[in-house]
Amino acid sequence: MMLPQLREEVLEANLEVVRRGLVLYTFGNASGIDRGAGLVVIKPSGLPYDRMTPADLVIVDLQGEIIEGAMRPSSDLPTHLVLYNAFPAIRAIVHTHSRAATAFAQARREIPCFGTTHADYFYGPIPVTAPMTADEIRTNYEENTGQAIVRRFHALDPLQIPAVLVSGHAPFTWGQSAIEAAHHAVILEEVADLATRTLALNPSATPIPQPLLDKHFLRKHGAAAYYGQK
Amino acid sequence: MMLPQLREEVLEANLEVVRRGLVLYTFGNASGIDRGAGLVVIKPSGLPYDRMTPADLVIVDLQGEIIEGAMRPSSDLPTHLVLYNAFPAIRAIVHTHSRAATAFAQARREIPCFGTTHADYFYGPIPVTAPMTADEIRTNYEENTGQAIVRRFHALDPLQIPAVLVSGHAPFTWGQSAIEAAHHAVILEEVADLATRTLALNPSATPIPQPLLDKHFLRKHGAAAYYGQK
Amino acid sequence: MMLPQLREEVLEANLEVVRRGLVLYTFGNASGIDRGAGLVVIKPSGLPYDRMTPADLVIVDLQGEIIEGAMRPSSDLPTHLVLYNAFPAIRAIVHTHSRAATAFAQARREIPCFGTTHADYFYGPIPVTAPMTADEIRTNYEENTGQAIVRRFHALDPLQIPAVLVSGHAPFTWGQSAIEAAHHAVILEEVADLATRTLALNPSATPIPQPLLDKHFLRKHGAAAYYGQK
Amino acid sequence: MMLPQLREEVLEANLEVVRRGLVLYTFGNASGIDRGAGLVVIKPSGLPYDRMTPADLVIVDLQGEIIEGAMRPSSDLPTHLVLYNAFPAIRAIVHTHSRAATAFAQARREIPCFGTTHADYFYGPIPVTAPMTADEIRTNYEENTGQAIVRRFHALDPLQIPAVLVSGHAPFTWGQSAIEAAHHAVILEEVADLATRTLALNPSATPIPQPLLDKHFLRKHGAAAYYGQK
Repeated sequence: MMLPQLREEVLEANLEVVRRGLVLYTFGNASGIDRGAGLVVIKPSGLPYDRMTPADLVIVDLQGEIIEGAMRPSSDLPTHLVLYNAFPAIRAIVHTHSRAATAFAQARREIPCFGTTHADYFYGPIPVTAPMTADEIRTNYEENTGQAIVRRFHALDPLQIPAVLVSGHAPFTWGQSAIEAAHHAVILEEVADLATRTLALNPSATPIPQPLLDKHFLRKHGAAAYYGQK
Repeated sequence: MMLPQLREEVLEANLEVVRRGLVLYTFGNASGIDRGAGLVVIKPSGLPYDRMTPADLVIVDLQGEIIEGAMRPSSDLPTHLVLYNAFPAIRAIVHTHSRAATAFAQARREIPCFGTTHADYFYGPIPVTAPMTADEIRTNYEENTGQAIVRRFHALDPLQIPAVLVSGHAPFTWGQSAIEAAHHAVILEEVADLATRTLALNPSATPIPQPLLDKHFLRKHGAAAYYGQK
Repeated sequence: MMLPQLREEVLEANLEVVRRGLVLYTFGNASGIDRGAGLVVIKPSGLPYDRMTPADLVIVDLQGEIIEGAMRPSSDLPTHLVLYNAFPAIRAIVHTHSRAATAFAQARREIPCFGTTHADYFYGPIPVTAPMTADEIRTNYEENTGQAIVRRFHALDPLQIPAVLVSGHAPFTWGQSAIEAAHHAVILEEVADLATRTLALNPSATPIPQPLLDKHFLRKHGAAAYYGQK
Repeated sequence: MMLPQLREEVLEANLEVVRRGLVLYTFGNASGIDRGAGLVVIKPSGLPYDRMTPADLVIVDLQGEIIEGAMRPSSDLPTHLVLYNAFPAIRAIVHTHSRAATAFAQARREIPCFGTTHADYFYGPIPVTAPMTADEIRTNYEENTGQAIVRRFHALDPLQIPAVLVSGHAPFTWGQSAIEAAHHAVILEEVADLATRTLALNPSATPIPQPLLDKHFLRKHGAAAYYGQK
């Protein structure tokens, strides 16, 4: 069996979002990439999580050809592949329909950075993609979903904003490892719920000032980080 | 004991909505029909779920006569029978008072299709029945509840929209199997909560465009479906 | 030890509201009365629930004198006693600070009967007491809380509306047994959350019509009830 | 190992806020002080809670020098030290990003005292700090966070209001023991959620009158308290 460790990590990312209450039934999917081999490990389509094993995951190449696996890959695979091709720094992707984040996607509102919880993980607002055209939906829909995300990030660094809301759909998050991508999904949901509550209390709430955003993001990320253990 | 497998399936549907937090105490009920035999298996009225066994379920014919069972059937039985008679394609019905969906029923608002989570299961908005007249309430209330649902579906396909909100009351869902009807109840609650949150973030939110609704519903249903395993 | 069965029932009512998530730490209290003996069994003040035994409960008479028990009774005892004296038909009282119901008490809004879930248990809106005067608060506060409830019920039947919201405080519920009073506390919380969601979706939502209220309350209560088993 | 009992108590306070659902992953921190020794026990930075032992906690003096411990202390340590130095009556501090309280901090609204649940623990509204200047954020940020809290309390008694909302950030609570500080964090979250719901039901809700605030706070605190066991 190829890529046994990546299979374990991707399975763990899939299970983490289940444990945290972010997915119902077979909703959601996680994948990871081995950049050296150019191979992606992804959840099979529509399979229940409770009996999923590393061997059930499907390995495909960056063109989507199945390299190893008896089952169909997640129907969102083409979205994942577009992101892996466009964002060379990311190594894993997680997709959920978690409630608070999905509501922002459905409301087609970005999530402003209202506080330090957000700033600790996302260096600015969580963007929403533009709506897709009827043609983009009818043909190669999942691939075009990925392209809509890539277009939205033309001036953004995916490692500084490791999350996006697909308009009328739901969030995708990513990271430099499978568990990091899953953590970003969990924290995005927390941040989205905080923002929902903040707007309920103050509909004209404003984002935190730039120095506070800088302070919190940069004390956890980059060369001058001082959070956590060495 | 008649229909042992259908009894198991209907019990499981009853327990699934309990496990998912959709019912309090003895609220809610699920039933299933054996179309060949013309017999319906339904939860007994007011019995706690935690000790319910397949043998506790009641078997009735399509006129509501008890064929097998020592207990009274659910008081909502006449509603179920009207639906089984009017919608030949359905094989199971679930009724809950789940919070988010019931709030839409109480607010007498349909649930618009705000996103792909909704579109994956329901091919359009979840309709609300018209209020019943005082006479319809006073005489044959439960049967008239079913008739109000059937009237609301005069131009709708119950397999494309496997859910309804009874005005001032709560949702009913159905499906081609007992577990599918229960899944529809769970997903309806998820979709209702997402819609509540969407409207809180954007009171003038609009439904997703028709091509996106088509894409999501049809990739999971019908001849061209490509979601899940073969 | 006196009244061992009532002690068991009152302990169970106390634990039921804990299990249902209605109380934090030592918040809340339940009591029951033996009408023949004129004795009330009540939770001790400020004691953790997880190690509470029937023997920890305190027995007092209707004047509040301790008849049996080593601990102080709940500080809300005088409220319970006023209700037992004024409402001869009730046999148990439960007090919680459950979230949705307490929010209505804090907002000083009654809970309208927006649906059949409410109508199944409460025959009309859940009333709110008038604010108490400074004198009523300063002297005999807990007793005056009971008097404010009794005044609010001067034209209401406590068995038809087995719940009240104390203005700026929280709900009290009651019933003909300890477990019924606890169930009313749990269902009140459900109904309050449903009403909160209903008002969020439709700020001008109206109560269900009288025939529907009659139908649902009376099919579960009174001589013509037909819900549940015989 | 120094201060073994305080280590146990501080660990328990850390775990209590985890058990109550107030923290995600490694968010949050608790500390306690031995006033005689002038030493502070605090959670290490970024360490998972599930395997944390008393020995993992870090001991520092009131200038922040590590006295015992192999790991870095929480990055919020300087905030804790400012509070211990400014508020001699407190013996423990807890910091979380709990949802309802953090939303008030993000919305930059104080939490009004809308009911007796609040009044039982906090003798007035929960204050919000003023926003910090860019200079205060860039240099000695965590220490300046503490100074912003101290300035906000210039006319408040920290034992009467054992909680604060840091503007754009999250709450801090404190108490005379580690478990009390944790309980204040849990109850603050409850009170914040109640206030959110109250404002949703009545946007112009007003605080409870002063006599009711006095009654509830003083029946649990101070010389005339009569709640709980002797």
